[in-house]
Amino acid sequence: MDALEMTLLFDYYGAMLTDKQRECFDMRHNQDLSLGEIAEVMGISRQAVCDNLSRTEALLRRMEANIGCVSRARKVREAMNTILEAADALASHPDITVSHMARQIAAAAQELKE
Amino acid sequence: MDALEMTLLFDYYGAMLTDKQRECFDMRHNQDLSLGEIAEVMGISRQAVCDNLSRTEALLRRMEANIGCVSRARKVREAMNTILEAADALASHPDITVSHMARQIAAAAQELKE
Repeated sequence: MDALEMTLLFDYYGAMLTDKQRECFDMRHNQDLSLGEIAEVMGISRQAVCDNLSRTEALLRRMEANIGCVSRARKVREAMNTILEAADALASHPDITVSHMARQIAAAAQELKE
Repeated sequence: MDALEMTLLFDYYGAMLTDKQRECFDMRHNQDLSLGEIAEVMGISRQAVCDNLSRTEALLRRMEANIGCVSRARKVREAMNTILEAADALASHPDITVSHMARQIAAAAQELKE
């Protein structure tokens, strides 16, 4: 799992972490600090930072394996793209019932994508 | 929060519980056993069953408050209903491009609903 995927897991499940786990994860993955720098900021050993990050990453992975928000969101996004593409193709149809319905469909799909 | 809502939370987050929490929750909410009956099956006190259930329900609620799967799934379902209704109205349109696109939209929306 790459860094981007980790950040995505954090977006969905970060609120379930402790303050310390969140802080540590944020310094590592968002602020890109080294383990030594994080250790200094938090006033703990480099090894403790390392353990904290490992536990956090394992917990985030376990939550995704058990709850599956990220994979579900991906499926929603893919379906919305399919729907939006088809709706866009109908949005300028000469029959105004069609174009009206197409815009309704696109609006509902767009809302979910955000 | 009613019993149905609890069962829904369990569907999404149950895999994050311990075996004992899951077993206890299942006996209470799916098999509808009394606290006393569960206590007997599990060989623990009625109070311990009560505590176990309270902790489980609190954890399920905390996960929904922090992760929001149930509320997100509800939004997806509502949007899919809007989309399906509009797509159905277009599915028998005489212009075959329209009916084809409408069926494509309906298929993508239907898949997400399941």
